[in-house]
Amino acid sequence: MVALRTKRTNNEADEPSSPVLRFDADKPLKLDAGTLLSPFQIAYKTYGTLNDARSNAILVCHALTGDQHVASTNPVTGKPGWWEVLIGPGKIIDTSRFFVICSNVIGGCLGSTGPASTNPATGKPYGLDLPIITIRDMVRAQLMLVDHFGIEKLFSVLGGSMGGMQVLQWASSYPERVFSALPIATGARHSSQNIAFHEVGRQAVMADPEWHGGKYFEQGKRPEKGLAVARMAAHITYLSEAALHRKFGRNLQDREALTFGFDADFQIESYLRHQGMTFVDRFDANSYLYMTRAMDYFDLAADHGGRLADAFAGTKTRFCLVSFTSDWLFPTEESRSVVHALNAAGASVSFVEIETDRGHDAFLLDEPELFAAINGFIASAARARGLSA
Amino acid sequence: MVALRTKRTNNEADEPSSPVLRFDADKPLKLDAGTLLSPFQIAYKTYGTLNDARSNAILVCHALTGDQHVASTNPVTGKPGWWEVLIGPGKIIDTSRFFVICSNVIGGCLGSTGPASTNPATGKPYGLDLPIITIRDMVRAQLMLVDHFGIEKLFSVLGGSMGGMQVLQWASSYPERVFSALPIATGARHSSQNIAFHEVGRQAVMADPEWHGGKYFEQGKRPEKGLAVARMAAHITYLSEAALHRKFGRNLQDREALTFGFDADFQIESYLRHQGMTFVDRFDANSYLYMTRAMDYFDLAADHGGRLADAFAGTKTRFCLVSFTSDWLFPTEESRSVVHALNAAGASVSFVEIETDRGHDAFLLDEPELFAAINGFIASAARARGLSA
Repeated sequence: MVALRTKRTNNEADEPSSPVLRFDADKPLKLDAGTLLSPFQIAYKTYGTLNDARSNAILVCHALTGDQHVASTNPVTGKPGWWEVLIGPGKIIDTSRFFVICSNVIGGCLGSTGPASTNPATGKPYGLDLPIITIRDMVRAQLMLVDHFGIEKLFSVLGGSMGGMQVLQWASSYPERVFSALPIATGARHSSQNIAFHEVGRQAVMADPEWHGGKYFEQGKRPEKGLAVARMAAHITYLSEAALHRKFGRNLQDREALTFGFDADFQIESYLRHQGMTFVDRFDANSYLYMTRAMDYFDLAADHGGRLADAFAGTKTRFCLVSFTSDWLFPTEESRSVVHALNAAGASVSFVEIETDRGHDAFLLDEPELFAAINGFIASAARARGLSA
Repeated sequence: MVALRTKRTNNEADEPSSPVLRFDADKPLKLDAGTLLSPFQIAYKTYGTLNDARSNAILVCHALTGDQHVASTNPVTGKPGWWEVLIGPGKIIDTSRFFVICSNVIGGCLGSTGPASTNPATGKPYGLDLPIITIRDMVRAQLMLVDHFGIEKLFSVLGGSMGGMQVLQWASSYPERVFSALPIATGARHSSQNIAFHEVGRQAVMADPEWHGGKYFEQGKRPEKGLAVARMAAHITYLSEAALHRKFGRNLQDREALTFGFDADFQIESYLRHQGMTFVDRFDANSYLYMTRAMDYFDLAADHGGRLADAFAGTKTRFCLVSFTSDWLFPTEESRSVVHALNAAGASVSFVEIETDRGHDAFLLDEPELFAAINGFIASAARARGLSA
């Protein structure tokens, strides 16, 4: 069985260690669920300096279990920011040149209002009393943050996976606010198989008696075992069969021979258990339910009468899509259908499929071809935007 | 959350509704774990009549969650046998011509000795006190059953998935006892990704507090929620992305619009929950741990110094391997490597890759090309064996 660490409190949810923008009753967040979220808050990080023309801002959108700590040490894990390989002074996304904004999505657990946040109406964590959050809701909140900075047009919006969904939503909902868009390893809708994997994860969380119908904080508990199982299942989908074979194969973990028991004989078992264990230290179980649901619900074509091209009608945004050959969570075909829709909408679009065996997770790794693609696209867009190098 | 049914007892484990062969202390089963299992029993079903020459016997090996009820009503579910589409009077495997034997594997839960069986030493179910069972152990027990029938040489051994592993093990361990072998949708070793999925399932079971370290029967409990989650995760791997898309897509379940909640909005969610729910009614959780472990441990090449061809050295058995294009649990490449090894061993081997989008589960379905392949192979082998049509 997975050994579990001590519980952490949910302080980061209410009082995050990054800046917070609070919106009171006069500025509610309109939700797709048909209700208003108010008051609410957005926790965010910025890197670099906004120029006088406010034309050098890049919004980075995070994935399912990501957060605002994109290019600086994560306060929960103590690890480097999740995209520090890409973003920082002198890096591909050069923060001595660009003003990078990254906010925790609504529904998250690192300081933006989510199920772990205190519900002002009850003084207790929202739990499942928080309405369902959609990708469009996340983007609506981000727009309010961008407005707060007085940024009329973002130079670029980029992100991978669920972050890429937000990029596509931005480009569709607010085309005049997005000069360039970089959706990576993503799609315009969540597939049946992807919904299936998410449902397994949710059922694993909900099957844990420590979940308590979502009210675990009030019981002083957390559904750590269920969440660990959910993470383990999801983690397999982030890698490729080839990468697993290359990294682990059937190698044994710190032993010479099979033990004929249920311990982690194989390295892959030990690795997965570790992934599950460390995840529960940094992530809220209810937030995991909300994030997976947001992705399941995402279907940009359905929001436009079933025709994806209509989601981008008349767009002037410059697009670059990136997919990875071994990504079976968001196969190249998903990106290609977005490219076709953008072509049909007459958009400026480039598309790069990167040959790698590292699976979906490739977008988070030191992947030279990815960096080259982003670098080329950003450089060209910067020239077009009149930003000096 | 998955709604759960009432518990069933483990009577079928000790006193199955099919014939049973009991082996007392004088005939223990030698296990790869290094111990002896004794006493033990094998529950089996037969169909058709063994001819005077005892040359018309076909041994069918079942998959992970299968059982001996291959061609007649299952006593637990009341449903048809799991391969009744293929086996019966006048069918492809014609029981008016062949004598078909199918036994519950050792470690199973339908009457052959397994973790749900009563341990004679304690009077309680074995639980995790049963030694780990391997594919080779299963086959060793089957040999004792075949000996019981006085069958010198099986006309054929066939099976899919874990059943196919047993077929390969039979052909490797007892080549002189196997005239022809039909391993379907299988491989000579379990891959890293497959071990990973099994580990997720095991952790889901073990995370359920009703598992009680495997001693749930003594508590009058069963880890149904954990086992249901395990089954849901596994079930995704039995289907293909294309089949899920074709069958379910993003279709909603009995509703016009998204409900903005965690109910099963999508058909795929409802379908998966149903798969989990019905599985716990018919299968023992500990047995699931043992079956998955047996598959994980299977590595025929490793048993022969790393050279798979040596597993089949000098074989005179006729082989036919079948794979399915959309099977990502046992991709065609796994079958192909067995075919290469058989070629290197100078064996008689044919290989059919069947184009289908139905994934791994295709081997259990009404798949005309599969039936044609089996039919052709069996007819040719029967002629070679001198069996009249």
